Amino acid sequence: MLLVKVGGGRVDKSVIAREVKAIGMEMVFVHGANVMRNVLSRELGQPTEYITSPSGVISTYTNQRALEILIMAYSLANVQWVAAFLRSGVRAVGLSGADGSMWIGNHKKYIVKVEAGKEILVTDTFTGKVTSVNHELLRLLIDQGYLPVITQPAITADGILINTDNDLNVAKMAAALQVTELVILFGAPGFLMNVTDPKSVVSRIAKGQIDELLPRAEGTMKKKLMGAKLAFELGVKRIYWGDARVKNPIQSALEGSGTVVE
Amino acid sequence: MLLVKVGGGRVDKSVIAREVKAIGMEMVFVHGANVMRNVLSRELGQPTEYITSPSGVISTYTNQRALEILIMAYSLANVQWVAAFLRSGVRAVGLSGADGSMWIGNHKKYIVKVEAGKEILVTDTFTGKVTSVNHELLRLLIDQGYLPVITQPAITADGILINTDNDLNVAKMAAALQVTELVILFGAPGFLMNVTDPKSVVSRIAKGQIDELLPRAEGTMKKKLMGAKLAFELGVKRIYWGDARVKNPIQSALEGSGTVVE
Repeated sequence: MLLVKVGGGRVDKSVIAREVKAIGMEMVFVHGANVMRNVLSRELGQPTEYITSPSGVISTYTNQRALEILIMAYSLANVQWVAAFLRSGVRAVGLSGADGSMWIGNHKKYIVKVEAGKEILVTDTFTGKVTSVNHELLRLLIDQGYLPVITQPAITADGILINTDNDLNVAKMAAALQVTELVILFGAPGFLMNVTDPKSVVSRIAKGQIDELLPRAEGTMKKKLMGAKLAFELGVKRIYWGDARVKNPIQSALEGSGTVVE
Repeated sequence: MLLVKVGGGRVDKSVIAREVKAIGMEMVFVHGANVMRNVLSRELGQPTEYITSPSGVISTYTNQRALEILIMAYSLANVQWVAAFLRSGVRAVGLSGADGSMWIGNHKKYIVKVEAGKEILVTDTFTGKVTSVNHELLRLLIDQGYLPVITQPAITADGILINTDNDLNVAKMAAALQVTELVILFGAPGFLMNVTDPKSVVSRIAKGQIDELLPRAEGTMKKKLMGAKLAFELGVKRIYWGDARVKNPIQSALEGSGTVVE
């Protein structure tokens, strides 16, 4: 089984849907929708706010309204992905992490942000971390030939919807489904040492190097590394980071044209 | 098995979720989200437009953007319903009609509207009628103890997303699942002869009366009758129309406090 995650940038859904059909393996598909979320946020007069944690990790600030906007944008993307898969002959079923309590997480009731050198406590935040994955629902669908197409939000055991990190969730899902290889596609040719320089791609990373790269990595690349770190801790053997915008993104990543972490 | 549909007006999701848990039967749950869609449409500067067909049926005009807005609002409502059910201990799984090609429909590529007495052809419309229901996916979920929580859109065999009529879809689903009783809840005490007068509720309608009531019914009540007509044609024996806003809406409807059609 292959676990594929595609980031929330501008990608051609039809290209990836056709490739998934051509590969023809059992798969679980996870996607983001950051760009659509940002557009909708602006249209609704509440542009996405970013906050920086004391350890330098940048996250989006998700209050109740921002969570609703996020759910709307991610759900629309989810339905569009499902339609693209169906057009390619893949029997896709869209799910959010809340469905059947698939992604159960902890609600981080407050977060600390750093602004102008000061640490500020932020409440009214609906983010958290997924702690367990209901693989039963996934197995049920996969065994009947359906492709689960999954996106935010997750949900707490008390039924509170929360925004979580897809890179970490994919690691958790890999463990729950006993998948040992991950394909993670995004809008860059692979892991970039310098996020603004596409030529700074690192083609191979040994899992032992993750800890030393972490403090030097920036933005979304830092998140990728944190996801990879968790994935290896949970039993994943190899992660393929690749470009979502090329002709055969999954195959290209599997052939090592991006970054292979192992 | 019980097939329950709740309209898209303001209802307390928790009340209904708790009642579904208390009833404890196998169920399929369908919901709308008209009010949320209208609010979002206004916020995005594209208020919902209504069009009247030559036969006097009022529908929403759904161009590409209106369809996207509809999907976002209905999906958000879907996730909120799922969360309400999970909080009540019901293992809910949210689905759109597109998931696993559950609601396959025909795309009405143009519609005729009447405006100032003239008939006008409208293209750029993404509406249609569901022609078949994939009950396999529903059965799979129900048999494992999940509650399918379903909303718009449907999808064509070619993978085009379309807005369809929930009242008609519920009739189609009843036939596919061989369910003989429907509970349809909305923001009125039952079938109203005069949509603006809650006291004009009709407590009992024989299925033979539907055809004679149709030309006299107004707005959403006309749609309810059309859904009922189709449901009876497809084998449904009894439909309970009731108020979604009361204490135990499903039980009250089943006890005949709204309108029973049989």
